[in-house]
Amino acid sequence: MSQSDRRNLTLMMDLYEMTMSNGYFLDRNPNDRVCFDVFYRHNPDQGGFAIFAGLEQVIEYIENLHFDGADIDYLRTLGLFDPGFLEYLRGYRFTGDIDAFPEGTIIYPNEPVLTVTASPIDAQLIETAVLAEINHQSLIATKAQRIVRAARGHAVSDFGARRAHNMDAAVYGARAAYIGGVVGTATVMAGQMFNIPVNGTMAHSWVMYFEDEFTAFRKYAETYPKGCILLIDTYDVLKSGIPNAIRTAHEVLEPMGERLRGVRIDSGDLAYFSKEMRRMLDEAGLEDCMIAASNSLDEYTISSILDQGGRIDSFGVGERLITAKSDPVFGAVYKLAAVERGGAWTPKIKISATVEKITNPGLKRVFRVFGPDGKARADLITLRDERLDFTKPVRYVDPLKPWRNRSFEDCTARELQVPAIRGGKRASDPVDISQIRDYVRRQLTDEIWQEEQRFENPHQHHLDMSPDYYDMKMTLLNEESRD
Amino acid sequence: MSQSDRRNLTLMMDLYEMTMSNGYFLDRNPNDRVCFDVFYRHNPDQGGFAIFAGLEQVIEYIENLHFDGADIDYLRTLGLFDPGFLEYLRGYRFTGDIDAFPEGTIIYPNEPVLTVTASPIDAQLIETAVLAEINHQSLIATKAQRIVRAARGHAVSDFGARRAHNMDAAVYGARAAYIGGVVGTATVMAGQMFNIPVNGTMAHSWVMYFEDEFTAFRKYAETYPKGCILLIDTYDVLKSGIPNAIRTAHEVLEPMGERLRGVRIDSGDLAYFSKEMRRMLDEAGLEDCMIAASNSLDEYTISSILDQGGRIDSFGVGERLITAKSDPVFGAVYKLAAVERGGAWTPKIKISATVEKITNPGLKRVFRVFGPDGKARADLITLRDERLDFTKPVRYVDPLKPWRNRSFEDCTARELQVPAIRGGKRASDPVDISQIRDYVRRQLTDEIWQEEQRFENPHQHHLDMSPDYYDMKMTLLNEESRD
Repeated sequence: MSQSDRRNLTLMMDLYEMTMSNGYFLDRNPNDRVCFDVFYRHNPDQGGFAIFAGLEQVIEYIENLHFDGADIDYLRTLGLFDPGFLEYLRGYRFTGDIDAFPEGTIIYPNEPVLTVTASPIDAQLIETAVLAEINHQSLIATKAQRIVRAARGHAVSDFGARRAHNMDAAVYGARAAYIGGVVGTATVMAGQMFNIPVNGTMAHSWVMYFEDEFTAFRKYAETYPKGCILLIDTYDVLKSGIPNAIRTAHEVLEPMGERLRGVRIDSGDLAYFSKEMRRMLDEAGLEDCMIAASNSLDEYTISSILDQGGRIDSFGVGERLITAKSDPVFGAVYKLAAVERGGAWTPKIKISATVEKITNPGLKRVFRVFGPDGKARADLITLRDERLDFTKPVRYVDPLKPWRNRSFEDCTARELQVPAIRGGKRASDPVDISQIRDYVRRQLTDEIWQEEQRFENPHQHHLDMSPDYYDMKMTLLNEESRD
Repeated sequence: MSQSDRRNLTLMMDLYEMTMSNGYFLDRNPNDRVCFDVFYRHNPDQGGFAIFAGLEQVIEYIENLHFDGADIDYLRTLGLFDPGFLEYLRGYRFTGDIDAFPEGTIIYPNEPVLTVTASPIDAQLIETAVLAEINHQSLIATKAQRIVRAARGHAVSDFGARRAHNMDAAVYGARAAYIGGVVGTATVMAGQMFNIPVNGTMAHSWVMYFEDEFTAFRKYAETYPKGCILLIDTYDVLKSGIPNAIRTAHEVLEPMGERLRGVRIDSGDLAYFSKEMRRMLDEAGLEDCMIAASNSLDEYTISSILDQGGRIDSFGVGERLITAKSDPVFGAVYKLAAVERGGAWTPKIKISATVEKITNPGLKRVFRVFGPDGKARADLITLRDERLDFTKPVRYVDPLKPWRNRSFEDCTARELQVPAIRGGKRASDPVDISQIRDYVRRQLTDEIWQEEQRFENPHQHHLDMSPDYYDMKMTLLNEESRD
């Protein structure tokens, strides 16, 4: 079966989702419902936060979830499944509910960014794809935002497709990178699918194809007189590339009434070369010619280039963005929080020898709490049926220092989860990607402390609990740990 | 546009492939042909070799390459392209030739693993997708083989889908991992598409869903009495998980005439727990019950567990395999090697301030040279029209020590590139994935020195040149470097 034949993604799941679902089918508790939370445990690159991305594709996946004839036939060959279950799958549709943070929300470890409330089969079948989508896009959005931050207002573009982990990683990675703040992508399909600005000019092969560098530049400038950007490091940046670019500006573009838009460099010492290039371009009257750079860049190399006074206006970032090379795993998990049987919900907790792997049990709500200055002071987990009045002081427990008696005063709060899917159907219209991107930027400007945004030893955001939620968790923990 | 709408991958390319192609179209040299080589520069994880994978999907991509109406419409909106070029794209098909190493070949830096001989437009349009596919699958096949090697004959399975960089990375990553030697995958779609064995049993959620651990085990064993594997670390491995598994074996499975196939552990100190688990299972008469382990494993953790005498029979490897976490970029590049104009080929070289970035120019052939013992002594690059007689001593140049005069004696040689595409059509039938996997194993057993297969400071395979090829490269380098 080839790539092109298939875009029914239903079977993009771990086999155990199927074996458990078959088990639940045979166990026949049709009125049971379960509640699963998606959360992650560590910020990538020891950063202060992450960005939640991929929700739109989760919704699409779930709305499209169905087992076609070829799927059923394949599953039958495994010899694992009850014939009644396979027949049930033929008409299967997800009918559960999903609540999630809006896409683009700044997120922190251990809070439920997405919650599924559904039958055990519904909830289990979607686990793998939900995690893969959110893990991938949140990883790349977070990495992109780090790189954009390091560029200090200079443009960053995604050039990563060729080093992406296959086609989807290039396309959805470009989407996530745009959410994280890059100005555009070189990946044409991402531009087509998501209305992201695309950019790109020439490779070294263009320069090598023609008889000499100037001819290659002249041909390109004649074809693209507007916005012409020339790649100047095929032979020798300062002896050949820049002189030929200047000659092209004067002899080809200026007679056509156009200016040379820019030059791009893809190798060598970018800090040193860019300063020399800037000087030569300025001396030739090309002060408006911008300098673009690429070559294994990331937030660390970009910071270093700018610290050295490098004169780069625009960064093309490839492999280290599209693979999140420095920390390529976003470890969101999908954990059972509660089971409803006979109309009553029972909270469930996963104990672990590793303390940080103990889950937050039960049905819950999550609020972001803002101080009078509009800055986010903490996130707060409460019981789902608790009602808090933020116009008055609200007591809370810091689970890392539970002995302190503290309260939020003069605060406001925003509930973070909103309906994403109700009864299997999308609960609101898709959000335009540029709005998601603006939402990221607005939060980082207005709501999130600068201290959480630094690279070195960032402030760790508080995830607090209401006293009632904390008591419930501790009671459950004591019960489960009793021998 | 949603994921499900689209599997025409044509526009999975960098924009510059299109801007250059439009330029070549307008430049009108319809009889020109170009030759591009794909090669990589460094083995991942400082290993001794890599595995070439992804060729089958490259062939599929190219056979399916076409611009549909929506593609043309989108490209027109960019305002970059000549109307004649857009019309030309409407009927466009790739008509060039591709030669490549057979999929699964052990490969080394700087040798052309795939060569495209085609019109400039044909060659340029496929660059991004060819690189993305080969970079991704070669990366994962190479990483998987490292992990399989570390497991010293114990089974390794791919459990990575949820941490993959989106859907394709899970599915094609599972394919590549199988080529690299894993015994199966948990990813159902990969099983369906490539006929790879799939495996999987239960998550912690299954155990938490039922009223207690034994009930969960009993229900599972009743549903799947054959090959039953129980997850034993939801509450307490030694106090609860193993005792309940033993009870399930005796009280549920044995009365049905079945044996407990295995237990799985997903947290904690795997070396310590596995030894205790083995002892408890053996004491209960369950010597044939296997122990499976997962939890952020890779070649380093597996080596360490086995060095400590851990009693694990089967490893489930997730995020560190499917993202190649320790070195997640496979840096294959696509470089112009020659241009044919008026029937004559001119070799092209890319000079760089970085010596290792200087390319191997011209039309060429690559041989693997075997000593009388059948072990691969070196790879050898020659001019394409050179004819060598390996029954006699064959002189060669080691480009790192060109002053030595050396020859291969009593050697045989295998040409590594074979036709993959001729005139845009597949040149031979697809190879069954199990044959590709066997080919990898056979090379590592019979042909590749053990010294190249160790993790620490492996022997670096030689890439030699025929004297005529070396002279051609040096002549070109001298010409191009002259000021």
